This record gives sequence, C-alpha cells and structure tokens, in this order.
Amino acid sequence: MITGQNLIAGQWSAQGKETFSSINPRTKEQSEGWFVNATSEEVDLAVTRAAEAFKTTRLYSAERLAAFLDTVADEIEKLGAVLIETADAETGLGKPRLEGERGRTTGQMRLFGKLLREGSYVEAIIDTAQQDRKPAPRPSIRRMLVPLGPVGVFGAGNFPLAFSVAGGDTASAFAAGCPVIVKAHPGHPGTSELVARAIRAAVEQCDFPLGFFSMLQGSTTEVGQALVAHPLLEAVGFTGSLAGGRALFDAAAGRPRPIPVFAEMGSVNPVVITPNAVKARGEAIAEGLATAVTLGSGQFCTNPGLIFVFDDPESQSLIAQVGELMDRRRPGVLLNQATQDHLFKTVGETLEHPSVSKRTLVDDINAGGYCYPNTVLQTTSEAFIADESLQREHFGPVTLFVVCSSFDALCQAIDALKGNLTATVHAEADDLDMAGNLFSLLREKAGRLIWNGYPTGVEVVHAMQHGGPYPATTAPQTTSVGLTAVKRFMRPVAFQNIPDALLPDALKDANPLTIWRIVDDELTRKPIST
Amino acid sequence: MITGQNLIAGQWSAQGKETFSSINPRTKEQSEGWFVNATSEEVDLAVTRAAEAFKTTRLYSAERLAAFLDTVADEIEKLGAVLIETADAETGLGKPRLEGERGRTTGQMRLFGKLLREGSYVEAIIDTAQQDRKPAPRPSIRRMLVPLGPVGVFGAGNFPLAFSVAGGDTASAFAAGCPVIVKAHPGHPGTSELVARAIRAAVEQCDFPLGFFSMLQGSTTEVGQALVAHPLLEAVGFTGSLAGGRALFDAAAGRPRPIPVFAEMGSVNPVVITPNAVKARGEAIAEGLATAVTLGSGQFCTNPGLIFVFDDPESQSLIAQVGELMDRRRPGVLLNQATQDHLFKTVGETLEHPSVSKRTLVDDINAGGYCYPNTVLQTTSEAFIADESLQREHFGPVTLFVVCSSFDALCQAIDALKGNLTATVHAEADDLDMAGNLFSLLREKAGRLIWNGYPTGVEVVHAMQHGGPYPATTAPQTTSVGLTAVKRFMRPVAFQNIPDALLPDALKDANPLTIWRIVDDELTRKPIST
Repeated sequence: MITGQNLIAGQWSAQGKETFSSINPRTKEQSEGWFVNATSEEVDLAVTRAAEAFKTTRLYSAERLAAFLDTVADEIEKLGAVLIETADAETGLGKPRLEGERGRTTGQMRLFGKLLREGSYVEAIIDTAQQDRKPAPRPSIRRMLVPLGPVGVFGAGNFPLAFSVAGGDTASAFAAGCPVIVKAHPGHPGTSELVARAIRAAVEQCDFPLGFFSMLQGSTTEVGQALVAHPLLEAVGFTGSLAGGRALFDAAAGRPRPIPVFAEMGSVNPVVITPNAVKARGEAIAEGLATAVTLGSGQFCTNPGLIFVFDDPESQSLIAQVGELMDRRRPGVLLNQATQDHLFKTVGETLEHPSVSKRTLVDDINAGGYCYPNTVLQTTSEAFIADESLQREHFGPVTLFVVCSSFDALCQAIDALKGNLTATVHAEADDLDMAGNLFSLLREKAGRLIWNGYPTGVEVVHAMQHGGPYPATTAPQTTSVGLTAVKRFMRPVAFQNIPDALLPDALKDANPLTIWRIVDDELTRKPIST
Repeated sequence: MITGQNLIAGQWSAQGKETFSSINPRTKEQSEGWFVNATSEEVDLAVTRAAEAFKTTRLYSAERLAAFLDTVADEIEKLGAVLIETADAETGLGKPRLEGERGRTTGQMRLFGKLLREGSYVEAIIDTAQQDRKPAPRPSIRRMLVPLGPVGVFGAGNFPLAFSVAGGDTASAFAAGCPVIVKAHPGHPGTSELVARAIRAAVEQCDFPLGFFSMLQGSTTEVGQALVAHPLLEAVGFTGSLAGGRALFDAAAGRPRPIPVFAEMGSVNPVVITPNAVKARGEAIAEGLATAVTLGSGQFCTNPGLIFVFDDPESQSLIAQVGELMDRRRPGVLLNQATQDHLFKTVGETLEHPSVSKRTLVDDINAGGYCYPNTVLQTTSEAFIADESLQREHFGPVTLFVVCSSFDALCQAIDALKGNLTATVHAEADDLDMAGNLFSLLREKAGRLIWNGYPTGVEVVHAMQHGGPYPATTAPQTTSVGLTAVKRFMRPVAFQNIPDALLPDALKDANPLTIWRIVDDELTRKPIST
C-alpha cells in the first residue's frame, strides 16, 4: 500500500536514487519498503506548480476553502486503522495517543473551516472617503488580509499527525488560501505518505488545482534547503530542533528575496512552585509533574523541563517524590536513535556541571527499543544564574529542579531565562501577590502563562498562543496553534478608491459576507450607506 | 540653541570625537555647529536604559500611553517656527511642505492616542473554561497583545518629521508601550535634536522613565550597526534605501538572537493607464503625473517611477505631454549630494540600455544647490520583461514609461515586477473588466492598489497599508503607516487559568475597559458572566 514515492502536484514521483527506510523504534527494525528522497527537479516542480495553483486559489472564497478543509478531515478519517498502525510502527507513540492526535488533527482542520465561514478573520478595515476634506478630498481606503503564496511546511518528528503533513502549519496555510509543499519528517515517511494521499483525494474532490499540495520525502537536509531556497516560495512553517529551525531561518533570511520562517523550536518550559503550593498540594504536584515530564516519553515541546522551587524541606521532599515516581514508571520508547543519542549527550553534559546532581536512581533501562531512563536533575539558583548552558533542552523524560536560595535569586534566575513556549506558576490563594510578580517577569520570557497546571496540553482554541521569544521560535509575534495561526500566511493590502464592483466581497459597501469590519473606527457588521 | 549632542536617557551627551555638520542643500554650505557621533558606550547606555524603562512602561495603561502621545504632539507644536526653519535649512523641502508634515506628525501621534483610548487594539481573545469536557476539563485561555521591548528607529532623510525622530515608527512603538532609541538621519541632525528635545520634555512631564527615549547622532553606519547588534534591542523600524535596509536586516537576522526589522525601502510604484483613460482624460493625467513625479523633487517612496501605457498615438502624446510639463517645471532642490550622485548614476545606467530613450529635453539645471533635471524616460515592454535592471529606482524627479505592445505583454511585465509599495490603474468605466484583471495581478506585487489616482499621498488612517513585498519592505505582512502599524511592536501572550485578579484588565471577566473581545468565538463587549 505504501509506495515510498513523493507526491508532486498530484503525481506520485520517484526520480531520485537516494533511498531510506523507516525504523520501528520499539524493535529498531527497518520497514520493508524504501522511500525515495526528492530530487532538486522534483522540488522545483512542486514549488512551480504550487505558484501556478496559487494564481487560482488566492481568489477562492472562504466557503470554498472551508469545504476543502472539511474534506481533508474526512479523507484522513477514511484512512482508518492503517494510519494509526503505520504511525505507531514508525514512532512508537502508542495507538491511544495517536488516535487522540488524529482527532486533534481533523478537529483543527474543521475549526479553521468554522473561522473561514464566520469570515471576519480577514481583518477588514475601511475608512470611507471625505469629499469635503481640505485641502484635498480624502480617498476611500479599505484594507484586508490576502493570502501570501506557496508555503513550505516541515513536519515534526514528535507529532506525526498534528504537527506533520496535515498539521497546524498545513491547516493554517490552506485556510489562508496558500498552496503547501510539505517536507515530510524522515521518522514517519509512511504515515506522511498516507496523509498526503488523503489530502490529494480532497484536492481532487474539491476540484482544486493539483499543485495546491505536494509532499517531499527526504532523509537529508538537502531537500529542505532546496525547498527554502526556491524563488517562488513565500513562507516556511517548521516544528523541530533549534539547530534545524535556525538553519532554515538563516537560509531564508539569506535569500536574494528573504521570506519569513515560522519555526517553533522547543523550550524548557519553566515551572515555579511556591512553598505554600508545595505544602498544600505537594503530592498532587509531584504526581502531575511526573506525568507531564514522562508524557509521550517526554518528547513534547511543552515538556516541563525546568522547575524552580525554594530551599526548604518540603520542596526537597517534592523533588524526592518526583524522582521516586519517575523511577517507578517504566521509561517509554523514544522516537529514534538520534533522540536517544541526543539525550545521552545533553544529560551527560549537564551532569558534568559540578552543581548538578541526579535525583533518580534507575539507570538500567534494559529495553529492546530506543529508550532513556526517566531522569530528575537538581541544581542551585546560583549555578543556574551563572551558567546559561543549564538552560539546554533535554528532549525526553528529563527535568531539572533549580533550588532557589531566595525570592530574589528566583527573580534573577527568571531574568536570566531565554525565550520559552510556556511558563507556569503553582501557588495558593495566599500567594497572589507573589504569583502576580512572578507572572509579570515570566510574561517577557514565554508565549503562554499557566496557573496551577501543566504546560503539556496545548488546546486548539481561538485564543491559543503556541509561540514565544527566541529560541522558542524565530517568530515570537505569531502562533503555530490556535486560530490566529492563519495570519502567518496572510498579508494586508489596501484598496484606494477602487470601484465597488472590483473590490473583494469583504470590502464591498453592502458587506455581502456580513463580517465584522472596522468602518471609520467603529466595529460593525452594517453595510456602508452610499 | 542646537548643541549637537546625543540624548541618552534624558541626558545630553557628547562623549565621541567624530563630528559632522549638516549641509544646506540649497547653498551647499555647512551649518555652523557640529554634531557628535554617538560612541558605542553611548549606544549601549541608551539601549540598557531603554530595557530598564521597559520594565515599567510595559505595564502602563493605554490611557497613560495615550496621554504621553498627546503630550509629544503638544511639545512638537511648542517648538514653533524654529523647527520648520531648521528642517527647511537642512532639507530644502520648503516651509509649506514642512508645515504640512508637522501636522501629519502630530496628528499621527494623537490618532494613535485615540486608538489606545478605544482599547480594542490589544486583540483580546478569550476561550472560557469547560469544566465538563471529556476526557479532561478545558482550561480558560485568554490571549492579548503585549509590548515587545526596546525598539531602534532609523529616521528617513526625505521626511524629516513624519518618518523621522517622532515619525510613524516612533509613534507606533510608543503606542505599543515600547521605549525607542532613534538613530537620527545625518541629513537633518538639527531638526532631530529639536524633536528629541520635545519628546524628552513629554517624557518628563508625563513622569515616564527617562530611558523611554534616546536619540543618537551618527554620520557613519557604525552607530546604527551597534544599535541593531545590541542584545537588549527587540525590533527595528527603518525607512530608507534598499542597501541600508537590507544591511540592517542582515545584521538583525545574523544576531545570536535574531530580531525583526520592519524596513520600508522604496519602490517604483507602477501605474497602468488604459487607452480609454488616455483618450478620456489624457491631459489631466499628464498634469497629475507631472505633479506626482516632481512632488518634493520626486523624493517620495511612493513616487510613480514606472508607467505602463499601450502602443498607440494617444499614449505617445501623453508621454510627450508629461515630458513637456516636466521640462517646464523648475527642478526642485535635492536633499543632499548623495541623492544627486545617485540620480546621475542610476539614470545614467538606465540610459545605457539600448531600448531606453529620454523624453525630456532640459539638461542644464543651472542650480546653486543639489539638483537633477526632471526626467522622463521611455522603454518597451519587451525590454522591460527581459531585463530586471529596468526596475531600478531613480530616487528623484524621474519616471520611466513602458510602452506595451499588447495586453499580454503588459500582463507579462506586471508578472515580472518585483515588490512595490503601491500599484495604480487609470481606467474608465468601460474598462472595468480589464482593470479587474490588472488589479488582480498587481495585488501580488504591492501593498496598496489605487484607482484613478496618484500614489504619492499616504493617508494616515486606520486602514492604510504602507508596505509591500520585498524589496519594497523586509516585512510585507506589516505596515509603517496607519493604525495597524502598532502591531509591529507587540506580541501575543496567552493566559491559562490565571485568576481574574492577576489578569491584565483587557482580559478580566468584567471587561473593565469595555473593549471588543472575541469570547468563545463571538465578538462582544459584554462582560463574562461567572
């Protein structure tokens, strides 16, 4: 059923000679089939056809795009059990988790459809003409968002559905009316092929141009670099490592015509736990942290990898509890060899620091697949403030407690933080002032602030902000989850004195889409009387 | 009255040894006083103090920021005649124009104040909690825009007030709550010092931290490069040349922690004139074009520098008419030697092209100051399509007619266009279909589309889009004029399950600011009932 080919504007294609196979992380066995790296000619054809498709799709109505998103969701569901089985074999993430992820993926497509049908997402702003203004009449100026053009999407390894071929980047680019060329993650090429097949079916059913979607396989960085370098590409969405995201950002910024890279690159997701919270809910917090740190074998960009506590006996007991709970849990399988190698390397480096000690005991993982022991580390606020290498991400079931000598030391440690996706405070009602001060500091360091929760769940809702200051992302002013993600792939255009018949519907006097518009500084759904 | 010093967080400072003077472009005479280039220590102090100031100002209410913007406007007006006289002596732009520009500058400050007082610009989006959701309750997620941090602003040479020290970049950064460090344009350092003095007075009157505003003088690129490289800077606003903007973009993208550069770098602003329009309004269009091309000696980023006509006798006559009108106008004074040199160079290069001819006759400018003859050039659509060097900007009173052999050739020429700030079509009611097709193509090439007008006027209104695809800007998804410009200096933050008492006012249940918010996908000003 899986052919190993690339999908280039509706055609399955395998021009290249370089191949790779997927590996089952539970058994380290190779899949039977081979996948063929896309050639530079295939990359060129995919982007060229995307640019051609854009000439049509950029003018599609929101309704037409919404119907397409719904059809993509339907087609992904129609793939049935084989999708979950393939994804499980390629990633080892487990069927329950992957079924949930599929629901998130299709739900996200349909949610963007709802946004489009409501229609106000184009941000229409209208300033009507003032014929009598002196010294010259004021023209009519009407502004709205229009789609940007072909988007390159790089699938993430840790979410083979929700942040991959039909993930949030693809969904939001489609919602904008932009063609997408996916560079599939080599960790789950079969899953990628299946999802590409579903999208291809939707393209055909909805009578979209075939160039609206392509999917490139690639086990080396060359395919992705060729995609980002292509002169007709307009933007890039990426979820993955700092090194990978930064390389694409640099390539895109260095182009003769630079293009934006919306790269979400990971985070250590600081959590602060006040003494009162430890006293009141220490056991529950220990349980919650152990669950969050080991969820999906810790392979979440929102994994709570850094936990600030104070230097008191209750907090020491909390650390010990988290260590025990994590020792007791059987470590999950990791995505691949690289993830395992990287964990050994990064945790090893952190442990070399004289201030760092380990609070878990189990070392012998004795697993058949890729694996790393659940690990709790501990250091001091003084060491943390002095050495920014202690902020390195350990991508896996690992967390580092920072024991703070004082509230001042905690504030200094927060001040020293680099950018993160999230920041959490566990506190009690009595701590409200302290928590307010902490959130005020943490706001400058993260895209999402959480009270008495765990950062791992990222709700797909209108208000979600999944982003944050560098190095969490290369684009802190945007989000990769939530409905405002669509705006990454749009740009404003103003229409000056354009006759009503030539205006897009969103800007016409009669407001035929009955969307919300800012008309002469007032938000309204009323038509403009002429 | 003018001291030549830098303003570093409220203190006038001249630590450096490098000095420069301003030059009167009408007489080529140096000003009496000297201006002192900022040292790297002064740059560092300015940004460091800005970052300190931001710790306070990031939490200021919209009302407090609005009052500050109003005070800046008042203080600029209080400078009185000396501001206009100084700006006129430094730029040669003429007092009436500069008085208009001052009105635009202060009006813009106050308009942002109105936006802030209305308050909905923070884009509040709230998804309320769903306690009963399965398998887990849905948390409350509330998102709004917050200020980004210290902003570096590079003043433009051609608008010494409206795009300079207190121009649109500064106004929109202030409106966001961001401290500003201005790198003053060396062409009008005295004007810059006066305006800096006005802003300093407003900072003091409104009891803002003195680090909220600094102004650096500099006649070399080093001051600006040091500013952009500073680790505490968060964003850059720039208006100027492609070479200058790109250099800053590259520097900002190459930082260990990249930051956005909102650079508006100029444009040739294509205009298409249909045969029917030439027939119906040829004389008026010729007059309009000659006026637009020579306005401010052509030193507008929206100067119509590229005009597409068809190959018919009426269009030839239009070209001749524009040439005659421009020959008859006395060429205005240019800003400086560099502008004059650049015009001789770029027009000279264009004239070397075998397809290009000149349709103006006057060559002898016989001026005491910096000057360049009003110039009309002509080429063919074939040459234009084949050679992208014919898209070079001639920054001055120069325009290039492209005579198109067919509608197809016109469409190909548009397809070959690089990014521009504006694109204009002159057409008649009978041409509506053709105009629709043209606008549809031009939409991908520009940030503002204009019907039967001239691009040189950029209205400061809510809906204005002053931006466009590269090389018009480095940030086509943003605008440097109009009220959405403030969003360049803001970023979204989501608040998850945060107690109401700790939420910013914009996100509290009661909606104390009575702003528009999207609550559970509905736009409303109502409070949230709990």
